[in-house]
Amino acid sequence: MRLRNVKGASELITKSDLVIENFKDYKGKFKIIFKNDNPIHLEIGTGKGNFIINMAKKYPDINFIGIEKYDSVLVRALEKVDYLDNLRFIRADATYIEDIFLKEIDTIYLNFSDPWPKDRHRHRRLTDSYFLKRYDNLFINKKHIIMKTDNRKLFEYSIIEFTNYGYIIENISLDLYNDDISNNVPTEYEEKFHNKGFPIYKIEISK
Amino acid sequence: MRLRNVKGASELITKSDLVIENFKDYKGKFKIIFKNDNPIHLEIGTGKGNFIINMAKKYPDINFIGIEKYDSVLVRALEKVDYLDNLRFIRADATYIEDIFLKEIDTIYLNFSDPWPKDRHRHRRLTDSYFLKRYDNLFINKKHIIMKTDNRKLFEYSIIEFTNYGYIIENISLDLYNDDISNNVPTEYEEKFHNKGFPIYKIEISK
Repeated sequence: MRLRNVKGASELITKSDLVIENFKDYKGKFKIIFKNDNPIHLEIGTGKGNFIINMAKKYPDINFIGIEKYDSVLVRALEKVDYLDNLRFIRADATYIEDIFLKEIDTIYLNFSDPWPKDRHRHRRLTDSYFLKRYDNLFINKKHIIMKTDNRKLFEYSIIEFTNYGYIIENISLDLYNDDISNNVPTEYEEKFHNKGFPIYKIEISK
Repeated sequence: MRLRNVKGASELITKSDLVIENFKDYKGKFKIIFKNDNPIHLEIGTGKGNFIINMAKKYPDINFIGIEKYDSVLVRALEKVDYLDNLRFIRADATYIEDIFLKEIDTIYLNFSDPWPKDRHRHRRLTDSYFLKRYDNLFINKKHIIMKTDNRKLFEYSIIEFTNYGYIIENISLDLYNDDISNNVPTEYEEKFHNKGFPIYKIEISK
């Protein structure tokens, strides 16, 4: 997505009760923050937050953490919600994800990740095996990833990466909005691209 | 496909030099028919024959066998070609495929197979694990299947069946005609549905 510099974003993030600033202190013990043993779901690249905020409202018995790299994007998410017990954000780069969490995540969401279309950048794709390897130690138990994208090439690449890495496909849709979407929580980007008539791809995998 | 009864189809098939009538005599030794050791590729559900006839013309160093259940369809294929050394047809039902071949096939093509949309008929789909199991003993060496379809639900189902059965995805396209199709050999059905604007799905798997 194109980024605009948002004045005072960094300050707003520091002040928010929803943002975990000292996240490095919680590796392996994020449940302390939520004060319960509910499962923790993680969205990597949470963008402007619609998905994770609405998921947190819809599923109060699940704890949600959204990771976003850019201040100027994360601040848009913070503007949308005052406070929710079961929702937190972390401003960090997914490249270092294995330094943040340890054996405590139930589900990872990858929504409309950057496709990095050039082949020489493929290891930057969040579904590349380099990232799948990083995710391994995040999961508390069964590995479980749910991905959505409108980018056909990224989706094709991801299917191959997932299955070569030993993941089993639990569900797949090559045209989400022509399936039952009664439980679908869209992202901002998803609504925009679906409205333009592009098919939305979704896959749910586990290991 | 809808079937019309074609008068004299059965007789035409019996007379054709391209049809292997006594195919049961050749189990495990089909190379006798081709009088060489070239690889044998098999299309299951060969329909009106465009694909396999054009493949046989394009790749003279590969032997092609097309299996078709219906006289009235197979006869349309026979009308299109006089004789080719590297092409044969068998009139048979794929359900009995493991009684026909034994450790002699290099590649199986599944083109626009019947989707059998009802869940209770799923074991009739040619990509269901019941069929994948039947194919196991057909292959001479590495198992290799190439599938094309315009049916999204069949394709989604097939991806899951293939990968759960241990197949590795070598290539996948969710919109074949927006990729490089310089080497694509279309079927009759494929041309019709692509011209109507439907995406054509393709997957190549191996084990």
